[in-house]
Amino acid sequence: MDQERYERGWKRLMEVDGEGGSRVVESLGDIAPDWGRYVIEFAFGDIYMREALDLKQRELITIASLTTQGGCEPQLHVHLNAALNVGLSPDEIVEAIMQCIPYTGFPRVLNAVMAAKKVFQERGDVPGFAASK
Amino acid sequence: MDQERYERGWKRLMEVDGEGGSRVVESLGDIAPDWGRYVIEFAFGDIYMREALDLKQRELITIASLTTQGGCEPQLHVHLNAALNVGLSPDEIVEAIMQCIPYTGFPRVLNAVMAAKKVFQERGDVPGFAASK
Amino acid sequence: MDQERYERGWKRLMEVDGEGGSRVVESLGDIAPDWGRYVIEFAFGDIYMREALDLKQRELITIASLTTQGGCEPQLHVHLNAALNVGLSPDEIVEAIMQCIPYTGFPRVLNAVMAAKKVFQERGDVPGFAASK
Amino acid sequence: MDQERYERGWKRLMEVDGEGGSRVVESLGDIAPDWGRYVIEFAFGDIYMREALDLKQRELITIASLTTQGGCEPQLHVHLNAALNVGLSPDEIVEAIMQCIPYTGFPRVLNAVMAAKKVFQERGDVPGFAASK
Amino acid sequence: MDQERYERGWKRLMEVDGEGGSRVVESLGDIAPDWGRYVIEFAFGDIYMREALDLKQRELITIASLTTQGGCEPQLHVHLNAALNVGLSPDEIVEAIMQCIPYTGFPRVLNAVMAAKKVFQERGDVPGFAASK
Amino acid sequence: MDQERYERGWKRLMEVDGEGGSRVVESLGDIAPDWGRYVIEFAFGDIYMREALDLKQRELITIASLTTQGGCEPQLHVHLNAALNVGLSPDEIVEAIMQCIPYTGFPRVLNAVMAAKKVFQERGDVPGFAASK
Repeated sequence: MDQERYERGWKRLMEVDGEGGSRVVESLGDIAPDWGRYVIEFAFGDIYMREALDLKQRELITIASLTTQGGCEPQLHVHLNAALNVGLSPDEIVEAIMQCIPYTGFPRVLNAVMAAKKVFQERGDVPGFAASK
Repeated sequence: MDQERYERGWKRLMEVDGEGGSRVVESLGDIAPDWGRYVIEFAFGDIYMREALDLKQRELITIASLTTQGGCEPQLHVHLNAALNVGLSPDEIVEAIMQCIPYTGFPRVLNAVMAAKKVFQERGDVPGFAASK
Repeated sequence: MDQERYERGWKRLMEVDGEGGSRVVESLGDIAPDWGRYVIEFAFGDIYMREALDLKQRELITIASLTTQGGCEPQLHVHLNAALNVGLSPDEIVEAIMQCIPYTGFPRVLNAVMAAKKVFQERGDVPGFAASK
Repeated sequence: MDQERYERGWKRLMEVDGEGGSRVVESLGDIAPDWGRYVIEFAFGDIYMREALDLKQRELITIASLTTQGGCEPQLHVHLNAALNVGLSPDEIVEAIMQCIPYTGFPRVLNAVMAAKKVFQERGDVPGFAASK
Repeated sequence: MDQERYERGWKRLMEVDGEGGSRVVESLGDIAPDWGRYVIEFAFGDIYMREALDLKQRELITIASLTTQGGCEPQLHVHLNAALNVGLSPDEIVEAIMQCIPYTGFPRVLNAVMAAKKVFQERGDVPGFAASK
Repeated sequence: MDQERYERGWKRLMEVDGEGGSRVVESLGDIAPDWGRYVIEFAFGDIYMREALDLKQRELITIASLTTQGGCEPQLHVHLNAALNVGLSPDEIVEAIMQCIPYTGFPRVLNAVMAAKKVFQERGDVPGFAASK
């Protein structure tokens, strides 16, 4: 195991997903510990460390990918939190989901908006959301 | 038909997709003319006119959605051109596709990268691509 | 906003989806109100107002599309009710789902049949269902 | 092998898909002959023989399922022909595909409309199409 | 109905899926009894009776197909049990799911691993699992 | 870059995919060289090096995943060759694809069988295929 790669991945995972990400990794510790190791090493240690796009752009893309794929509501929950963590506003997040309507249709977009609603409610203090809507 | 909405959609379609978009709309003129009308009115006259995200962000999202969905290579061709049209660099576009690997796997990402390669070759003069790679 | 289009869409939504549809639209009112507006204007004000197919045929098609797509059980719940609302019988609805087996396999069809079972039970008085099975 | 079931399936396949269907079955004769046998026995001998829906309704459903699934253009080609064979008009077929826009998005619908355009052109004499469009 | 085919399918269903399979079939008895009949006759009486691959190999394939498809967690639950029933070890089952990461991405694989975790916990006595992890 | 991981991945890629795999990696060398690097390091250096399943089992799983996903015919072409390379017989490969019928339907299975037919014809000398069929 490449220790340096694991550590930079873990740091990036903490920065992006925060507790939500580490909870998922831990929950698989007794059945598929390498799933979490690969998420840390490959997804966060390799992909999320790349240049050319910043973390806000990466989360817009991730949310579009999970929205389109369907059946990934638990992962959307993690990445909707991540999107807020890296500085996207609730309005930008909802807008990213809305942009998928012409490409993937209303149902998948509805599922993603419902997941966003839940995350925004859980975080209550999300700036601008409770106030502006 | 709401003429104003159609016209602002057409203008936005020209700005974003350019000839590639209008060619698709025209090719269906004799069989499903309303497909093109709805793309113009709804996708471009409504969705692409919205605020909160700019056109670069919208194309990153669209490319992620089409990459993830699979089987949409012709539409990727149009939107890879659109991404260049609105000012994304080839590096940013390839990076957006690469960001989808952890979420949708290597095969769908390969299909999208191959579509990007074709578009970049067709446009030959894409700044920075031939030179830097 | 095109008021006439919105109003004919709302009327059609009420006719087809009934309360189930308006509940979904309302539930997003504080987070993505335009999702509901586009469903009303575009899905119901444009698409469902078209000719060449009647509402029964449109709901057969919608149920096939949602069954095949997968992960759309909440939307199936709305459209299984819609199918009954526009006059399809429980037998015709189950049959439409069964017709998808060769094309999308047993699992997606099972998910849709389970959704139908729930709708039929909720509506209890569905004519012919309790009696004939 | 249940001979009676095979024979009623073959008859139904001929009635619905015609030559297009038998060509597919034959093309697999040297590699996976049972794929064709199961299509005949199960898809056509069992499913397409069921009651509650007629063949026109079944083809509307099949086209919606294949359009939504994506990547099934060869199969759409067979079933777009089948739809005409069982008496659906070109207008009804295009309309069935259009009805999928809100549920599966513009790209998958575009792929299906392009497949329909090709079938209608190949059959040239399709009544009403060349004339009315 | 081909009685012999039904009976050999039922026997095979019992051998592979056990109670989990029969419960699903029964739960649809009042709404879509033929869904269960076709699963028994076609999926188990035809496909699962074929040669060239044994039952362990067939369950590895089924788990890969359900993992990739997404939104099939109830069916995964049945087939994760089936995989244990035909003699695959928990390690082999988790490994089959992990093998799908490069092809379908981390999210679908996570959903399948979570389903496996639930099945292994329910069966408690699964040899080697509680001990080795 | 972890040189040891890259090298063991490359060796495994050569063993499994052979020239077909290296050709894909090379074809992206001027546009997305890291796509190939990650396939080598992660897919082959990590995943394909794991224990609990042998290479034959891994290719059965990969073929099931690609068949189910759809729109991955180029990748199926590579992995159908890989399946033969690691010692699966044509009959076992076709059987693995057939096993997916109940789960993903006839159309996706047809696409995969057609891809297999092409690979078997290209390799002409595949033992037992030309003779037995």
